Order: sequence, then C-alpha cells, then structure tokens
Amino acid sequence: MSFTLRARVTSEFVGTAFLLATVIGSGIMGERLANGNVAIALLANTLATGAALVALILTFGPISGAHFNPAVTLADASQSGLPWREVPAYILGQMSGALIGAACAHLMFDMPLYSVSHHVRSGLSQDFSEFIATFGLMAVIWGCARLRSTAVPFAVGAYITAAYWFTASTSFANPAVTIARCLSDTFAGIRPKDVPGFVVAQLLGAAAATLLFRWLIPSLPSTAADVVLPRRS
Amino acid sequence: MSFTLRARVTSEFVGTAFLLATVIGSGIMGERLANGNVAIALLANTLATGAALVALILTFGPISGAHFNPAVTLADASQSGLPWREVPAYILGQMSGALIGAACAHLMFDMPLYSVSHHVRSGLSQDFSEFIATFGLMAVIWGCARLRSTAVPFAVGAYITAAYWFTASTSFANPAVTIARCLSDTFAGIRPKDVPGFVVAQLLGAAAATLLFRWLIPSLPSTAADVVLPRRS
Amino acid sequence: MSFTLRARVTSEFVGTAFLLATVIGSGIMGERLANGNVAIALLANTLATGAALVALILTFGPISGAHFNPAVTLADASQSGLPWREVPAYILGQMSGALIGAACAHLMFDMPLYSVSHHVRSGLSQDFSEFIATFGLMAVIWGCARLRSTAVPFAVGAYITAAYWFTASTSFANPAVTIARCLSDTFAGIRPKDVPGFVVAQLLGAAAATLLFRWLIPSLPSTAADVVLPRRS
Amino acid sequence: MSFTLRARVTSEFVGTAFLLATVIGSGIMGERLANGNVAIALLANTLATGAALVALILTFGPISGAHFNPAVTLADASQSGLPWREVPAYILGQMSGALIGAACAHLMFDMPLYSVSHHVRSGLSQDFSEFIATFGLMAVIWGCARLRSTAVPFAVGAYITAAYWFTASTSFANPAVTIARCLSDTFAGIRPKDVPGFVVAQLLGAAAATLLFRWLIPSLPSTAADVVLPRRS
Repeated sequence: MSFTLRARVTSEFVGTAFLLATVIGSGIMGERLANGNVAIALLANTLATGAALVALILTFGPISGAHFNPAVTLADASQSGLPWREVPAYILGQMSGALIGAACAHLMFDMPLYSVSHHVRSGLSQDFSEFIATFGLMAVIWGCARLRSTAVPFAVGAYITAAYWFTASTSFANPAVTIARCLSDTFAGIRPKDVPGFVVAQLLGAAAATLLFRWLIPSLPSTAADVVLPRRS
Repeated sequence: MSFTLRARVTSEFVGTAFLLATVIGSGIMGERLANGNVAIALLANTLATGAALVALILTFGPISGAHFNPAVTLADASQSGLPWREVPAYILGQMSGALIGAACAHLMFDMPLYSVSHHVRSGLSQDFSEFIATFGLMAVIWGCARLRSTAVPFAVGAYITAAYWFTASTSFANPAVTIARCLSDTFAGIRPKDVPGFVVAQLLGAAAATLLFRWLIPSLPSTAADVVLPRRS
Repeated sequence: MSFTLRARVTSEFVGTAFLLATVIGSGIMGERLANGNVAIALLANTLATGAALVALILTFGPISGAHFNPAVTLADASQSGLPWREVPAYILGQMSGALIGAACAHLMFDMPLYSVSHHVRSGLSQDFSEFIATFGLMAVIWGCARLRSTAVPFAVGAYITAAYWFTASTSFANPAVTIARCLSDTFAGIRPKDVPGFVVAQLLGAAAATLLFRWLIPSLPSTAADVVLPRRS
Repeated sequence: MSFTLRARVTSEFVGTAFLLATVIGSGIMGERLANGNVAIALLANTLATGAALVALILTFGPISGAHFNPAVTLADASQSGLPWREVPAYILGQMSGALIGAACAHLMFDMPLYSVSHHVRSGLSQDFSEFIATFGLMAVIWGCARLRSTAVPFAVGAYITAAYWFTASTSFANPAVTIARCLSDTFAGIRPKDVPGFVVAQLLGAAAATLLFRWLIPSLPSTAADVVLPRRS
C-alpha cells in the first residue's frame, strides 16, 4: 500500500510533535516531582521517551516510515530510499512538528509557548556523545530495517532507552529534536549556542553508520528496507 | 471466531475492572511506600498501568476488542465498527466494571468501598492535556488497528506509559476511568467537579484523531480493524 | 514435538528454581541498596520478577508449558489439559524447584540456606488480594493460551509486573512460591502461619477464572492451549 | 543469507563495543545523578543494559549471531555450531570491541581512557552468583534459540534485567565484559584480582547449562539454532 506525499508528511509532522511533547513534557513532569533527585527525573524521562517511540513508530511507521528525524531521512535518501525530491517536505514536516510538539508540552504545563534554554551542553565529550548516540541509532535502524523490519519499533525504543543513560549528552541523536529543545528552558533544553555542535556530530554519526552497514550488508537489495524507509511517492 | 454480545460485554466488564483496580491500587501502594517522593509513586503507578494494559488487551482483545473505554467504543461505532445498537451495552459493561474495579482496589487496601476524591485537577491546561492524551491514544489505536493489529496491546501499553508523564493530567484518556476515579480519595483520584471538563476534552480528542486517520488511511476497508474493533454481534 | 515426562518435570524444576531465586534474590538486593525506601526496593523486585517471567516462559514454555505454579497445573488438568496422572510429578518438580531456588538466592547473598520468615501478611484484605491476583493471572493464561499463545510469556510477565503493585499482598499468586517464601526471612518472605490463607485464596481465584473462561470461550477445542499447557505425556 | 567471517567479526566487535559502552556509561551516569542511592543507580544501569541487549541482538543477531560473549561462542562451538576454526576470530572481535567500548564510555564522560578498578567483588558467594548467572543466560539462549529463535533478543534482554538484581554480583555473565570492566574504576568496575574467579565460574555455568539442554532437547537438529548461532563461514 502506498500513501500520498501529503499523508506521509502529515504522519511525520504528527509523530514528531508527539515525540517532542513526550521528551519535553516528561522532562518537566519528572523534574517537578522528583524532589531534586535528577536520576529519578531522568528515569521518568527515559521510560516515557522509549515507550513513546515504540507506540509512535508502530502507529506511523507503515504510513511514512516514522523517521521523525532529518538525519534518518538524509541517510535513507543517500541509499536511494526516499527520493531526494521528497526530502525537503519530510524535513519540513519534522521541523514544524517538533516546534508544535514543544509548544504543546509547554501549554500542558502552563508555561510560555517558547523560552530560550540555558541548559549548557558543550564540550568535546558532549559532541562525541552525540556522534556515538546517532551512530548507534542509525546502526539499529539499518540493521533491523534490512533484516527484521517488524522489530524496528521495539529496537529503536529500546536503543534510545539505553542511550539516554550511556551517553553523557542523554542522546538527542536527532537534529529536529535538538533545535526544538533549544526553545524549551526546561529539563530537556539545550542552549542555542550548543546546537550546531550537536547537529554536526549527529550527521557525522549517521553517515558513519550508513557506510558501515552498506559494507556489512551489501548483498541485500535496498528495497528490503521498505517497511521503515518507504521508497515511493 | 465470533462471540455473543453477552460474552463480549462480560469481557469489557472484567477487563475494565482490572484496569481500574490497577490504576487505583498501584496508586495507593505507590503513595504508601514512596516516603513522599511523588515521582517514585508515579513511576510505580505508570509501570503497573502500562503493564496491565499489555496483559489485559492481549487477554480480552480477541473476545471484545478490549476497548475498556467509552471514547474508543464511540469512535469505533462512528466508523461503522461496532454496531450502534451494541454501544449502550458496551458502555454499561465498561462503567460497571470501572466501579467494581475501584471497589476491589479499595477493599484490597482496607479502605471504604468508595470515597469522594478531593484531588484537584482543574484548569485549561489540565483539560488540554486530556485532549492531547486521548487524541494520541486514539491515533495509536487507529494507526495500529488498521495496519499492525497484533501490535495494539504493546502500542497502547507503551503509549499510556509515556502519556502518564508527558501530559500534565497524567493522561486519564477514558471517560469510564475518569468517573470511577472520582470515587477514590487516593493518589489516582479526581474531584467530581473536574470530571466534566475531562470527559468533554477526551471525547473531542478521540473525535479529532478519528477524523485525522480517516483522512490518512482512507483506502483501507474499515473491517481491517477487526482484531481490535470487532464488527459482528 | 513432544517431551518425556522426565524432561518436562526437569523443565518445571529448573524454571521454578530460577523464578524463586529471582523473587527472593532481587528482594534482598533491592532492600540492601534502597536506603529504606520500600517503593524503590519493590520497583527493583517487580522489574526483576516481570523480566524473569518473560525469559523463563520463553525458555521453558515449549518444553513443559512453563506452569511453575501448582494452581496453573491443577487448573489445566481440570480442563483435560495435563493428564491427572502427571499432576503429582509436575507439582513435585515445582515444589522442589522452589525450595532449591530459595536456597540458591540465600547462598548468593551469604545467608543461611533457609530461615523462617517473620513477615506478617495476614488479614482478609491480604487473602482477598491473593484471590484477585490469582484470578487475574489465570484469566490472562486462559485468554492468551487459547487465542494468542505466543504472547503468553509477555502477557504473564506484564500481568505480574502490574499485580505486584495493584494488590495489597504484592501478588504471590502461586502456592509453590508462597511455601518457599515462608523459608526466607527477607523482603519477600511470609510468616508460615499466613501461608494457608494465601494458598486457599490462590486456588479459589484460579478456579473462579477457569469457570469464567470456560463460559467465555466454550467453542474452542481445549487443545488450542497446547503451546502453554501441553497435553501429551 | 550468509555473511563473510570478516563481516561477522565486525558485527561482534561493534555490538560488544556498544554493550560495554552501555554497561559502563550508564553506570557512571547513574552514580553521578543518584545522590548516593545505589538502588536508583542500579535501576538505571539495569534498564539501560537490558534495553541495549534487545536493540543490539535485534541489530547484529542476523549477521553474526550476536554472541558478544566468549562463553556463548565456546558453548556454540562445542555443539557443532560455529566452526572451531572461527572461534579465535570471534573472541578477538569480542575482546577488542569490549576494550574499545569501555574507552568510548570513558571518553564520553570526560574520564581517562582506562583506569584500574578498585571495586571489590570477591568471595565464594560472588563466584557462585556468576555461575548461576551464566547458567541461566546460557539456558535462555539454548532454550529460545532452538525453539523460539525470534524471541532471543527479548529473552536475553529480559533475563539480564532480572539477573542484575537476583544475583549478588549483578550478573556479569560474560568473560569479555568482565575483563573490560576491570579497566574501569567506576560503578561497573571489578578489581583485576577478582576477574579469574568470575571467568572460571562463568565458563562452568555455561558448560553446565549446555549439558542440561543437550539432554532436555536432544531430538532437535543442532542447525535449528541458526538464527542466533550461525553455522557457516
């Protein structure tokens, strides 16, 4: 079954909005309730984000591939997945969804629509964390999409659950998520000036994983990825 | 395989009773043990509710569709799923199950059968939270029921796990659950006067998601949803 | 594929041993590390037990049905599942496994092999909790075993995860587990004098759920349960 | 589909690197944020490790079998799975991956590449814990690999989640992981002098489980394990 570009972009928009609402909203809720114990706040944030990814990829995956992430969209296009001419619409849907989702989270918690974050996330080790986080995410997507596509929602949810804790940056691993989070002066925020380093590291990580899996699984036709990474307009 | 209306309503009754016993019982247990750390109490409440939904939808889904929720039943009927003439019996089963489940939770924890809640959950941001929560729940149900029906139990359990944390209202997302919780003066309670706003927001959220998915996935025959949303009497 | 009774009883023995080691061992570890916050200790105990059930039922289910529980074995035999003549061997395997598993947990944590528990769990509300807990467990098993048998490991693991929190007794729901836990003076223990009330309530709960599901799903041949509840010797 | 030995060893290398980065990185993060509550730190460590195993085995399982563990590789070879001539390459990939993964974790958290651990884990009960832990892990792998191979990622992730709590040693259950963790003076570390006892206990546990399952499931052709334990070069 195929979906129109308009339906697929809407799917990316709604899914990314819920992803951001989850990341930011659960961060606010966790911080408010945890009495200053950051580990408990991050546990709540992690549980919510991992679970949301499972639900959202199951829901929107069959429609648009459930990228919710410009790095994934670019990686897919680079391997002759999504046609390049559809990439701008996908990324626009993701970016606008991320911004709307952040605003919804703020509204639900009685905060201003947007506020510039002061959360410092700078330094080489933070950027290196984002490189590793996105390398791993893209490895999971390529590995599962090509060989066990129905497992992708669970694999991605599980991976991000782990990556929130094993990277020093709590694994943003997504340029659209990163940009929207700089407009949230909350637990999940990131200072605008730390955004470029994160985004560059994310794109490099996604590219490195794509090269690795292109070598690891060369014999497979790229269309084997069609459940996650739809090919047709 | 088809089930009689009587069997299906019993399935809705028992399933909704266990759902309420879980929501209220785990709230009581969490609050009693958490030494005043609300985040830990809510983590326990979340874990229990998400896990119960997985178990209960796996168990009762093949019998009655495992709606456990008047908003889901109405949304299904609106799309020519459940026949309208069966809707009252379904909702009656859900409502009575919710009330019995709440009483069972109170009995297990040595409390009076019912007590009116004083838990304030008012204001536009709370109602907006319920709109978003139920919009997302119904989106997950429509998306998965039509395209990946065996994943519904996991998708719904995961979604509610996330929504407990990313909405400011902890995501009731269910009119039967909301009404029963106003008779529980515990962690999970809600003041009777806050109930109408929640229920209206929930019905609007379910309706909005139904319209969206009707547009997103028009080409599918509605009977594709038969695992979750049974069609025959 | 069929297994000899000896292999199946060994499977029940090893699986029940690991179940008890998990319940008791994770209770000890949780209590030691939680600095007196019982909710955190119980969260760890819950996470470990639910996860162990998933792993153990996946591993031993295809061999012996992974009952690990005399109440389940009796319920199955009552519906012409396991032949009555094999029931004593199953229960013996489960009971001896439970006792060995408890001893292993104590050894791992440098404690005496056995010690009589002083953990009070008495009163009608505790026994009522066990009735509800076992009713729900057996409902999940019958519902899934007959209609979605490959989901049983996940449904049972998820159900017990929830039931640890929504019942006041933390859901023993298993006579073999209950008896072994009275020989552990730890977090998971139970006073010997409270054991009979628990066991009676568990058997009544299992019987009630069996009657309900026999009425709910009469049209199914009982052999539909063969993945979880093997029928042949 | 078959993969070259080079591709499979690379898969073991990358997967084991991510496993170690997760174990060590989430331990550092958990300890830093948990304000001295070790139970909360271990909950985070557990959640991350269990989730990472699900994601990594789903991703790398179809390529190399996702052993990530010399004990598993040796057990498999002993049953005519992996050819003995490929065992050294597998173990080399796992060991070097473990060392690189530990270094990556340290880099992400601004620590020296390696530091010798002072974490005492000695005594018979610790070694007995590792015997039980690895016995259980290998039992889960053999049981699922032979009878329900697609469930292996979930079974192993769930098992380790439980074993972190029910063993007194937090279940290393893996010689490559054990050796790399002695080079990390962090939450997840182990003193070098405690390593040999752990490794011997792990190998004995894996051998015991292999003997048990060889007796329990003799009728199956060993190639039934091919999803997890690939046979061809």
